Amino acid sequence: MRILLVNPNSTASMTRKIGDAARAVAAAGTVVVAVNPPDTPPSIEGYYDEALSLAGLLAEVRKGEAEGFDGFVVACFDDSGLDACRSLATGPVVGICEAAMHLATTIATGFSVVTTLPRSIPIIEHNALRYGFERQCRRVRAADVPVLALEQPGSDARQKVRSEIMRAIEEDRCEAVILGCAGMADLTNWLSEETGIPVIDGVVAAAKLVEAIVGAGLRTGKTGGYAPPLPK
Amino acid sequence: MRILLVNPNSTASMTRKIGDAARAVAAAGTVVVAVNPPDTPPSIEGYYDEALSLAGLLAEVRKGEAEGFDGFVVACFDDSGLDACRSLATGPVVGICEAAMHLATTIATGFSVVTTLPRSIPIIEHNALRYGFERQCRRVRAADVPVLALEQPGSDARQKVRSEIMRAIEEDRCEAVILGCAGMADLTNWLSEETGIPVIDGVVAAAKLVEAIVGAGLRTGKTGGYAPPLPK
Amino acid sequence: MRILLVNPNSTASMTRKIGDAARAVAAAGTVVVAVNPPDTPPSIEGYYDEALSLAGLLAEVRKGEAEGFDGFVVACFDDSGLDACRSLATGPVVGICEAAMHLATTIATGFSVVTTLPRSIPIIEHNALRYGFERQCRRVRAADVPVLALEQPGSDARQKVRSEIMRAIEEDRCEAVILGCAGMADLTNWLSEETGIPVIDGVVAAAKLVEAIVGAGLRTGKTGGYAPPLPK
Amino acid sequence: MRILLVNPNSTASMTRKIGDAARAVAAAGTVVVAVNPPDTPPSIEGYYDEALSLAGLLAEVRKGEAEGFDGFVVACFDDSGLDACRSLATGPVVGICEAAMHLATTIATGFSVVTTLPRSIPIIEHNALRYGFERQCRRVRAADVPVLALEQPGSDARQKVRSEIMRAIEEDRCEAVILGCAGMADLTNWLSEETGIPVIDGVVAAAKLVEAIVGAGLRTGKTGGYAPPLPK
Amino acid sequence: MRILLVNPNSTASMTRKIGDAARAVAAAGTVVVAVNPPDTPPSIEGYYDEALSLAGLLAEVRKGEAEGFDGFVVACFDDSGLDACRSLATGPVVGICEAAMHLATTIATGFSVVTTLPRSIPIIEHNALRYGFERQCRRVRAADVPVLALEQPGSDARQKVRSEIMRAIEEDRCEAVILGCAGMADLTNWLSEETGIPVIDGVVAAAKLVEAIVGAGLRTGKTGGYAPPLPK
Amino acid sequence: MRILLVNPNSTASMTRKIGDAARAVAAAGTVVVAVNPPDTPPSIEGYYDEALSLAGLLAEVRKGEAEGFDGFVVACFDDSGLDACRSLATGPVVGICEAAMHLATTIATGFSVVTTLPRSIPIIEHNALRYGFERQCRRVRAADVPVLALEQPGSDARQKVRSEIMRAIEEDRCEAVILGCAGMADLTNWLSEETGIPVIDGVVAAAKLVEAIVGAGLRTGKTGGYAPPLPK
Repeated sequence: MRILLVNPNSTASMTRKIGDAARAVAAAGTVVVAVNPPDTPPSIEGYYDEALSLAGLLAEVRKGEAEGFDGFVVACFDDSGLDACRSLATGPVVGICEAAMHLATTIATGFSVVTTLPRSIPIIEHNALRYGFERQCRRVRAADVPVLALEQPGSDARQKVRSEIMRAIEEDRCEAVILGCAGMADLTNWLSEETGIPVIDGVVAAAKLVEAIVGAGLRTGKTGGYAPPLPK
Repeated sequence: MRILLVNPNSTASMTRKIGDAARAVAAAGTVVVAVNPPDTPPSIEGYYDEALSLAGLLAEVRKGEAEGFDGFVVACFDDSGLDACRSLATGPVVGICEAAMHLATTIATGFSVVTTLPRSIPIIEHNALRYGFERQCRRVRAADVPVLALEQPGSDARQKVRSEIMRAIEEDRCEAVILGCAGMADLTNWLSEETGIPVIDGVVAAAKLVEAIVGAGLRTGKTGGYAPPLPK
Repeated sequence: MRILLVNPNSTASMTRKIGDAARAVAAAGTVVVAVNPPDTPPSIEGYYDEALSLAGLLAEVRKGEAEGFDGFVVACFDDSGLDACRSLATGPVVGICEAAMHLATTIATGFSVVTTLPRSIPIIEHNALRYGFERQCRRVRAADVPVLALEQPGSDARQKVRSEIMRAIEEDRCEAVILGCAGMADLTNWLSEETGIPVIDGVVAAAKLVEAIVGAGLRTGKTGGYAPPLPK
Repeated sequence: MRILLVNPNSTASMTRKIGDAARAVAAAGTVVVAVNPPDTPPSIEGYYDEALSLAGLLAEVRKGEAEGFDGFVVACFDDSGLDACRSLATGPVVGICEAAMHLATTIATGFSVVTTLPRSIPIIEHNALRYGFERQCRRVRAADVPVLALEQPGSDARQKVRSEIMRAIEEDRCEAVILGCAGMADLTNWLSEETGIPVIDGVVAAAKLVEAIVGAGLRTGKTGGYAPPLPK
Repeated sequence: MRILLVNPNSTASMTRKIGDAARAVAAAGTVVVAVNPPDTPPSIEGYYDEALSLAGLLAEVRKGEAEGFDGFVVACFDDSGLDACRSLATGPVVGICEAAMHLATTIATGFSVVTTLPRSIPIIEHNALRYGFERQCRRVRAADVPVLALEQPGSDARQKVRSEIMRAIEEDRCEAVILGCAGMADLTNWLSEETGIPVIDGVVAAAKLVEAIVGAGLRTGKTGGYAPPLPK
Repeated sequence: MRILLVNPNSTASMTRKIGDAARAVAAAGTVVVAVNPPDTPPSIEGYYDEALSLAGLLAEVRKGEAEGFDGFVVACFDDSGLDACRSLATGPVVGICEAAMHLATTIATGFSVVTTLPRSIPIIEHNALRYGFERQCRRVRAADVPVLALEQPGSDARQKVRSEIMRAIEEDRCEAVILGCAGMADLTNWLSEETGIPVIDGVVAAAKLVEAIVGAGLRTGKTGGYAPPLPK
């Protein structure tokens, strides 16, 4: 099985980190390829960046479809352009926010999300609503760190994320926490040990969920909203 | 007051029709300018076309903001990129689906939507959910006509739309109907007379709603999700 | 265009203030007439006062309809008797709570309401639900000031409202605030400057929204819940 | 225990029928008094009639409270002025739509409502929403008979109600049916036998529910929305 | 009328207390019999205990049905096995959480629940959702006392429950409180006096609600989900 | 990885079929063991059968936990006792209804369910609600075939299921269909080819979803509702 993981932003170091996170959990026989468009914003922080990344993201999915990939992961926690990607792809397309939330609801009666910037909170709250998880999602919180600070060795970003999770446990009565940014993928194990509750990374969740859907023999339904684009 | 109306698709004849519809209802003193990006799909039919229109749409809004427009209308019934536009604009930005639904709820206890193609139904149903109108919106229906057929003189598109409205009245117990495509703007009066219930065109609704918001002295809030994009 | 603004309580000074607020934003060509019934409670504070104001309110709307007004505003934040008024009126009828909430959702991803007395909180929460804004309305708060204290020059009512808005910004993550009482109409600009976020007055919002609906050529649908009263 | 049953309309024959229905099920020791205001509409058919009945309804509840009644039933299926009545009463106040829906949910996984006129459908749908029963209420239907036709011996109103219930069973998959008008109280047993599913009359349901609440030693909470009206 | 009250746990002292609470409010002519299965967990604390109590609970209801009881109360706040019991019973079956919530909504615009252990919170939150009271239920709280501590004379359990109610009043703006455990039945009056708001015990509520449903002549609908079990 | 698949009913032929279906899709290295309790009902048809299967189901999960299974599938479409099983298990526990719905939402904007008997419809509708999929689940339908008829070679059960799916496609505008009974697992491929849309079997979906959760390194959260049972 071959899975294409598309990081919609153009920061190659983040793409590598995301690809590594997915490969670390991939089943035997699963090939994970991680790419990013060349010309999108270096990080997706809010609605505008998200919108500007879509054309590049779709181009990568179109290429991947032509190359016969079996499934796709959109590796931005906004789940940018998920529906448009599905209209292009034969196999399943899964977003990392979506995947993390699906998995969270099977291991906890309620979860919270800790993301980077406050401006992303309404985006993630809206994701919870569209997937149907507005009741299970106790709260979306921001650690107030820029996305790329997670890439910088000396930053206090990790500690801020850890502190926000501790607050979530105390105030939200959450039984699991989702990391609300693809750039946090390498913090998962450390945070899980530190906090004592399941900590879910969306990249890992999405890679495994795509494997599961492909493995179940399922493909994207093409008779309604995800019908192939009409020729123009 | 100057309002910029952006048609996200690149069909100039539709832009003209939309601009005319808005100008026909504009208050004295309101200037309506209607534009479209040069390089987007000629019609927005589904998630993919919508995604491909965003960069062009945002470029037009950015230009309009620089030119000091007081408010903006996004003239595609998918309400494409509405949130991203809001992060760029000082004044209000209103989508035509959004506006039609807001107005419908003040004159009817329930409304239905009649759009062009079945693939647009889940998009519009999702719009109803995000605006909070999932209860008032009785049903989203498709007349099964391509968007550009509405521009062709000899087509039976108008009759199909009319028939679908009659079915909506009978089956959905709706007290008003919304036309689910910017290209239907010129059918509003005829359909209203034919069907005997209020028929709402989103372009007219959005133009008037932007006038109202600007006239009320309100601007887009900038302390959260609609904060200006971060420099990259 | 002629708009009748009915203050359901019988305090004439408040009617004048409300009329002034609406006229200050009315478009060229819009005539705003503000009236109140002679024999309703001097202020609407809770369910009982609201119920007692309905007969007087409806009499004013009936008179206004006979005089050919194009649209109506019900100027009490409980949106008292809105549906009954609609069954009497040919043109649109808009409540000030309703209008403020509609406009708020176009400029902010979430808003809070600051009203006068705690007993009004469940009424306004219920309004949010019936309009579909229960998700966008982050919280309804009371500044704990009687309605008529807002009319008294020396009272600390204004400062209490201001403080409650500051708490709303900090605790509710709201991006706009709605003033939950027609009697706060004259505080809007001051509060907006003090707090740094959009502050929305329902009277202004409703006056402009009625203008928009009438300007869009729309009238109240008469084939269902808003059918004219049966003769008795 | 003394229960005051207030029919908000002024048709004395209906008041008698309602009182009889309640007395037929009252527990030993329960006294049911049925009254109606002298000057309200003869039937409540839609929002306008409902609003015009409120002052009279409240006057009856106020009198009843002074006479020490232990609990109150508002005997119109619109549940007119329920909240206002609660602010006046020490004991519980229950509406007949509310009571029927509460009881229905304990004996069926889903119910439908059959009311008189189509214009009442949105009112009852809204009741279902405010009580939280929008999911259990499968559909609100109208038999299309005027309220007072139920009082006329030769009318075909009964057969129309019966036919609509049969349609509800077939189309809505409902496991119980609620009669959506106080004037149908005397049809309950006949309809239950004819249709083979539980048929619920709101008057009976409300009389028994008030008995239950009073018997449980509970009174209306007075620290929030139902606080006594402020002196004016 | 004969009502069978089944305590699903096997602690006879609690069964006696529950039976006494119900008998204290039963109408003249109502016989309340309280039983418990012999071999279920001594207390129901979480999903596992609940599941293990079901076979015993159902056996008691089956016996009661054979003995001709008119109605049934399931006296565990998890409302364990309510639907399964209904498929066995001709008369109504009511849970104590369900009953308390139904009654609470008629005397307060919002209520909170105070239960024993934190692990029961998601169970009760889910109950609120399935009954449709997720909006009226402001918050489910745990006093953090084991169920059987309520039976021990010297424990501080009562004070902890009282303190949690005081916090609920202050923080949740609730107008009534429900005691979230059958074992709190004897604290109701004391807590109501201490806290100044209506305090609702589920056992009392359920006994009276069953009386009301039976008194209204209603039985469990048998044409859908509650059809009698198929022979195996 | 070792997954224990528990069929809560006691029909060994169905257990074998279910085990085969799961093994057919299991990843290399995954061992699937399928068991059933010895003394539960031969089929789960409604609430009562479900309740009677729980003790046996939990005993199997307890044994499996002792034997170190990494994850568990509850293979009844009612998702019986899911929460109780989670309190026993270290690894994830997934229900087949739950899994099918999770996967369906990633490949279709809306799905319908086709189950065996009408009495199971409210159970499955409630499952959709508790997982948050009440909006994506367009309709739950019954083909009106007993569970064990699916095991009988000559029965017309398969054709009835096929016909009901065709009706779902036409009437519900669903883009995928879920088979609402573990006993339909062997019909999936045939039905998918016949109907032209993705047909989802819960057993396959659950086996793959458990693999995904275990593979992602996640375990059941133990700090809230799923805490281990207290010793009794």
